[in-house]
Amino acid sequence: MSAAQWADEAARTIMDRCDQLAELTSMEGGIERTYLSPEMAKAFELVGGWMRDAGLEVSIDPAGNLRGRAEGERDGLPALVLGSHLDSVPDAGKYDGILGVITALSVAEHLVKSGATATLPFALEVVGFGDEEGARFGATLLGSYALGAGWNDEWLDLTDANGVTMRQAFRDFGLDPEHVAEAAHTTEDAIGYLEFHIEQGPILEQRDRALSSVSSIAAASRYMVTIHGLSCHIATPYDLRHDALTAAAEIITGVDRISREAGTRANVGEISAEPGGVNVIAGKATFSLDLRAGTDELRDETYRRIWDMAAEVCARYDVTMEKECIHTADSAQCDPFLRSCIEEGIEQAEGKEAFGLISYPGHDGMAVAGLLPIAMLYVRCKGGISHSPLESVREDDVAYGADAFAHAIENVATRLRAAEADALTADVVLGMEA
Amino acid sequence: MSAAQWADEAARTIMDRCDQLAELTSMEGGIERTYLSPEMAKAFELVGGWMRDAGLEVSIDPAGNLRGRAEGERDGLPALVLGSHLDSVPDAGKYDGILGVITALSVAEHLVKSGATATLPFALEVVGFGDEEGARFGATLLGSYALGAGWNDEWLDLTDANGVTMRQAFRDFGLDPEHVAEAAHTTEDAIGYLEFHIEQGPILEQRDRALSSVSSIAAASRYMVTIHGLSCHIATPYDLRHDALTAAAEIITGVDRISREAGTRANVGEISAEPGGVNVIAGKATFSLDLRAGTDELRDETYRRIWDMAAEVCARYDVTMEKECIHTADSAQCDPFLRSCIEEGIEQAEGKEAFGLISYPGHDGMAVAGLLPIAMLYVRCKGGISHSPLESVREDDVAYGADAFAHAIENVATRLRAAEADALTADVVLGMEA
Repeated sequence: MSAAQWADEAARTIMDRCDQLAELTSMEGGIERTYLSPEMAKAFELVGGWMRDAGLEVSIDPAGNLRGRAEGERDGLPALVLGSHLDSVPDAGKYDGILGVITALSVAEHLVKSGATATLPFALEVVGFGDEEGARFGATLLGSYALGAGWNDEWLDLTDANGVTMRQAFRDFGLDPEHVAEAAHTTEDAIGYLEFHIEQGPILEQRDRALSSVSSIAAASRYMVTIHGLSCHIATPYDLRHDALTAAAEIITGVDRISREAGTRANVGEISAEPGGVNVIAGKATFSLDLRAGTDELRDETYRRIWDMAAEVCARYDVTMEKECIHTADSAQCDPFLRSCIEEGIEQAEGKEAFGLISYPGHDGMAVAGLLPIAMLYVRCKGGISHSPLESVREDDVAYGADAFAHAIENVATRLRAAEADALTADVVLGMEA
Repeated sequence: MSAAQWADEAARTIMDRCDQLAELTSMEGGIERTYLSPEMAKAFELVGGWMRDAGLEVSIDPAGNLRGRAEGERDGLPALVLGSHLDSVPDAGKYDGILGVITALSVAEHLVKSGATATLPFALEVVGFGDEEGARFGATLLGSYALGAGWNDEWLDLTDANGVTMRQAFRDFGLDPEHVAEAAHTTEDAIGYLEFHIEQGPILEQRDRALSSVSSIAAASRYMVTIHGLSCHIATPYDLRHDALTAAAEIITGVDRISREAGTRANVGEISAEPGGVNVIAGKATFSLDLRAGTDELRDETYRRIWDMAAEVCARYDVTMEKECIHTADSAQCDPFLRSCIEEGIEQAEGKEAFGLISYPGHDGMAVAGLLPIAMLYVRCKGGISHSPLESVREDDVAYGADAFAHAIENVATRLRAAEADALTADVVLGMEA
């Protein structure tokens, strides 16, 4: 079996467009594209052009997200939102987020050009979120929180590594920081959210499958941890030291051990020590800590074990610890009805039984889930590797994915039409059976 | 017993001058003064003025060291060099290095103004070295290697954190990088080297003593260690990760354990991880490693254990290690004759039996020892703390130290006169009995 012919052709275009987007970077020899940056403006111009060619009405919303809309059977219907993000981590791959936006765009183009949108009981909206990774301002999912009515104006005071506030960054991007929250949808003008994304894990590869749905997105919390010791000369005997960096190192190894035991996923990705002299015991060490768990309870219990371990280490090194929670997101369940439409689409495209996976990575869908029912379609990526230049997807998997995503949208339409609701809203979708 | 009255007065001046030098810094709210920097130029101007007031002939040598010379019983005699350094680590204290230069200057002033230099069989040279800490270019003891005829022109290609080469830094400082090696003394124009320094350890405080001599300066080697892994998303299961930072953290805790067991002193003071995303497993981690040991053999054996441990950790995390030796210095023995002159001086000033300590910190004397016989006088510092804003010395200890240092110089003169050599050289000093 192979994917539909339109999808095979679309997959070639999608792969080529991901290559083109990889050129819009602030990093020499690698990919880095952050929220409200000049590179993001160029990406919006490029993708916006493709959206117009696809027959979509294009705009940049007040939160710095790119949006393209195709009307349904009549103008002004509430939208089924198809989204993912266009920003990246530093030294990123080509596909995380980007592939989802570009595939949704190709699927929308297919549905517009085949005349299918003219019979849909909802509009289609393709969204390229400006921030999901949080690489510029620390806080994540900024674009999708804004769309999902979860924007917080306090974030405007966050600063990037150059000391630029998010408020100023909005102005530099040509947007008014006073109006960001106006990017929000409501449960009247949008009915649900579907996201297409690389798996960022090895399960599909292990099961020799191209696609799956997502059952839930894992709980996550991020901290910045600071260890306060006392800087002194390397000549200082061990019993008189207050070595912040060695204490931090022992805590980091403890995090690894506890997270493995608990069946969670943890990471320390950033670290620095002060004053930073080769022969000076560090008086201060700061590191990031990110933890993902299948349930909120497992995340919280694992953090309790980590903090107990850290307190014991700090006591032993005679240092103190300060921690700041910089992000927390409870686990998000995918909507059973939308998920069943995606799984049906996978079966139509692949001719194989579909299944769902827990998503350890966070996704824009987490932020949208506060407002709208969500579901996701995962596509296999090589070695489960992401957030790396080695990210890789197969073109034939993308073809199956595009085909399945198009089927999923038509499945949503078919089943909603059968529901015979007076007016379509997010609540109608939430009331549908799987 | 108290120190001589001139020394009590000198100690007040010395403490005040250390306070004044602390104002010449590139760091807001702290002390940082590096080699060939604008702050160093200001320090040379300030200290050079004090040297002139003391009756010394002042110059800046081709290596960027400040020198002040007082002639002996006739002009042009070889010099007894009294030195330490005027540069600092980042966020330094007021006394490491600085106290030794300023005390030597006050002692020289006392000997000039009391007429004592007019009867010395050697000249006195007070040197404020421009680099000992290596904070700007990584390589250490640059000023003292130049004076000790150990300069290496390859160092001119080293760069600072802003990418400025040492070659350019010399030009910016008004010096010709082609002539640095001309700062060297010979064994004909200098007879030995004495250094006054804070202990940077807690032994004098534990023994309730103000002063000691130094028996030897410990062996030291510094490495930059890089762990190469593979960056990927936090969602990656543990068995597929190549986590460079967690491997580095486990190595750092191993260094701490091995060094404690071996009775050496180790430090990891600098660390960084790349790409540096909160949710990205680090693909690269780099840290500094410094190790001091009482003997060359103990240093080398301890490093062998550290590298074995690191290899085992790297295998477990499926990462690789690269290491670069950025500094190595074998242990330096203090000259028995010069050391005995210092210990006699301590007994004259304090009225108590003198003893020697191993120095774990490196000192300019290590670099000078390649050319000249050296000895050192240690003064107690509070809590053994150095390389920290908390560095503290007692004014009465400084008075005893200045008194002892002046006595030591006169002891050298008295005993060399008795030796009745035709011409005074470093070799004559080396041939003297303790």
